[in-house]
Amino acid sequence: MTNPPYVIGHQQPDTDTICSAVAYARLKQAQGADAIAARAGDPNPETQFVLDRWNVEPPVYLDDASGERLILVDHNEHGQAVDGSREAEVIEVIDHHRIGDIRTGEPILFINRPVGSTATVITDLYDDADVEIPRDVAGLLLSGLLSDTLVLRSPTTTETDRVVAERLAELARVDYEEYGKALLERKGALGEREPSEIVLGDFKEFEFGSAHVGIGQVETVTPETVLDQQTEIIEAMEAIRTERGYTDLLLLVTDILEEGSTLLIRGEHSDSIAEALSTRVTDHVGPLPGVVSRKKQVVPNLSSAFD
Amino acid sequence: MTNPPYVIGHQQPDTDTICSAVAYARLKQAQGADAIAARAGDPNPETQFVLDRWNVEPPVYLDDASGERLILVDHNEHGQAVDGSREAEVIEVIDHHRIGDIRTGEPILFINRPVGSTATVITDLYDDADVEIPRDVAGLLLSGLLSDTLVLRSPTTTETDRVVAERLAELARVDYEEYGKALLERKGALGEREPSEIVLGDFKEFEFGSAHVGIGQVETVTPETVLDQQTEIIEAMEAIRTERGYTDLLLLVTDILEEGSTLLIRGEHSDSIAEALSTRVTDHVGPLPGVVSRKKQVVPNLSSAFD
Repeated sequence: MTNPPYVIGHQQPDTDTICSAVAYARLKQAQGADAIAARAGDPNPETQFVLDRWNVEPPVYLDDASGERLILVDHNEHGQAVDGSREAEVIEVIDHHRIGDIRTGEPILFINRPVGSTATVITDLYDDADVEIPRDVAGLLLSGLLSDTLVLRSPTTTETDRVVAERLAELARVDYEEYGKALLERKGALGEREPSEIVLGDFKEFEFGSAHVGIGQVETVTPETVLDQQTEIIEAMEAIRTERGYTDLLLLVTDILEEGSTLLIRGEHSDSIAEALSTRVTDHVGPLPGVVSRKKQVVPNLSSAFD
Repeated sequence: MTNPPYVIGHQQPDTDTICSAVAYARLKQAQGADAIAARAGDPNPETQFVLDRWNVEPPVYLDDASGERLILVDHNEHGQAVDGSREAEVIEVIDHHRIGDIRTGEPILFINRPVGSTATVITDLYDDADVEIPRDVAGLLLSGLLSDTLVLRSPTTTETDRVVAERLAELARVDYEEYGKALLERKGALGEREPSEIVLGDFKEFEFGSAHVGIGQVETVTPETVLDQQTEIIEAMEAIRTERGYTDLLLLVTDILEEGSTLLIRGEHSDSIAEALSTRVTDHVGPLPGVVSRKKQVVPNLSSAFD
C-alpha cells in the first residue's frame, strides 16, 4: 500500500496556498480518494485569521517530502516547493503562475490557468466534478481569491475571478467587500515584525538564466511603517542574500490603497533590474508606480531581461 | 498589431496532433479569437485519409517558429516541437503526455490530462466554452482519439475517452468501431516505405538525464512486413543515430491485433534499456509482450532507469 498523497502549496505559504491545499484535499476526499492537506511553513497572520474565521484546522506541516507523492497547488517550481520535492513524485499540479521546472516521467493532470488565484481554478474543479462546495470550503476559497487579488483590485484579476468571487461569497454567506477589507487589514498588520521577517514573510525564489533572485513582497495599507525602517531592512536583505547565495534580493513594499510599490534592492544586477522595471534606484531604493503584482508586473520583465 | 498565434502539434505529426491543431484553432475562431492551425511536418497516410474523409484542408506548414506565438497541442517538450520553438513565445499548451521542459515568463493556460488523446481534452474545452462541435470537427476529434488509443484498446484509454468517443461518433454520424477499423488499416499500410521512413514515420526524441534517446513506433496489423526487413532497418537506425547524435535509438514494431511489440535497438545503453523494459536483446532485437504504448509503457521506465 502506498501512502496517500500530500496536497501542498509553496514555501512561505500565503492564504491562497493554504486555502487551496485544504479545499483541493477536501475535493479529493469527496470523490473517494485519499489525500492529506499539507503546508511547507507556518500560516501568516492573515491566513490564521481565515482558518479561525471558518473554524478549519491548519494543514499538517511537512518538513521533508522525499519519497512522498505530491499534489502541488499554487506553485509549479521546485525552488518554491517544500524541501525534498525533487526526491518526491509529483502526481498533479493545480496553479495560476508562470510555467516552471516540474518534469514527470508519466502523464499527469496539470492545470494552470492565467487567473487571479488558485482558489479560482479549484472552484472550477469542484464544478467539473459536480461536487457541491460546503460553506467552510467556500469561505476558504473566497479568502484565497480575495487575498491574492487584493479584493479584485490587482491587475491579475480576470472576469472569471469576479464571477467566482460573487458565487463563493453567496455560498459562504458573507459580503465579499466587507470580508475582503477585514482580510486586507490583517495583511497590513505588520506590527512589531523584525526586518528579516518583513523580507521573508511573503517570499519567492526564481531562476532567470544564471541569476538566482529572491523577491519578497509586503502588501500593506500603511507602507510608511515599513519604509521608516528601510535602512535596517536593506541591511537584513544583504545578510539574507549572502547567506542564501542569491545574486539579487528584491523587496516590493506595496501600497494597497495607492496601487503602487517601492522597490528595495541589493545584489549584483541592480542596474539591469532597475532598467527592466523602468525605475531608477538610488541608495538601493526605487519607485514602482502602478506596480502591485510580483507575478505579472515584475517576474515577466526580469525573465525577458535575463533571457 | 501582432501576428495571430499558430496552433501546432509535434514533429512527425500523427493524426491526433493534426486533428487537435485544426479542432482547437476552430474553437478559438468560434470564440472570436484569431488562430491559425499549423503543422511541423507532412501528414502521414492515415492522417491524409482522415482529412480527405472529412473534407478538411491540412493545416499550414510552419518550418520555423522563431519570433512567433505558439499554442502547443499534443506535446510539451521543445525536443519534439517545430524548429525555432525555443525562440518563440508559448502562450498555451493543451496535451496528454508527461510534463516536459516548457517554461514561460508569464502565467499561461496549460492543460495536461492523463487521458488517451489530446482530442479528448479538446472536446472537453468545447464543452467548457459552451461551443457546439460541428460535424467535421467531431469527425477530426474522433479520428485523433481512435488513432491514439488504437480504437480504445491501448492501455492509455480511460473511461473519459470511451464516453467522449461515443458522443463524437454520434455527432460525426459514424459507427466508431467500423470507422476505427478503417483508420487502423491505414496505419498498417506501410507499403513500399524505405527503412528510414519506417523508423522516422512516428518518431519522438527524449532527454533522460544525459541520454538523448530517439524512439520510433510502427503500429501495424502486419508486423511481419516490417520485421522481414529488420536487418536493413537496424542498419538505417544506426545511420540515423550517428547522424543526429542520439545516444540510443529504439523502434517499437507494435502488433495492434496481438497487443504487443518487438523492440529494435541501437546505441550506448542497450543493456540498461533492455533491463528497464524487462526484455532480453539479442542482435539488437527483443520481445515486448503486452507493450503497445510508447508513452505509458516505455518512456516512464526509461525515465526511472536514467534518473
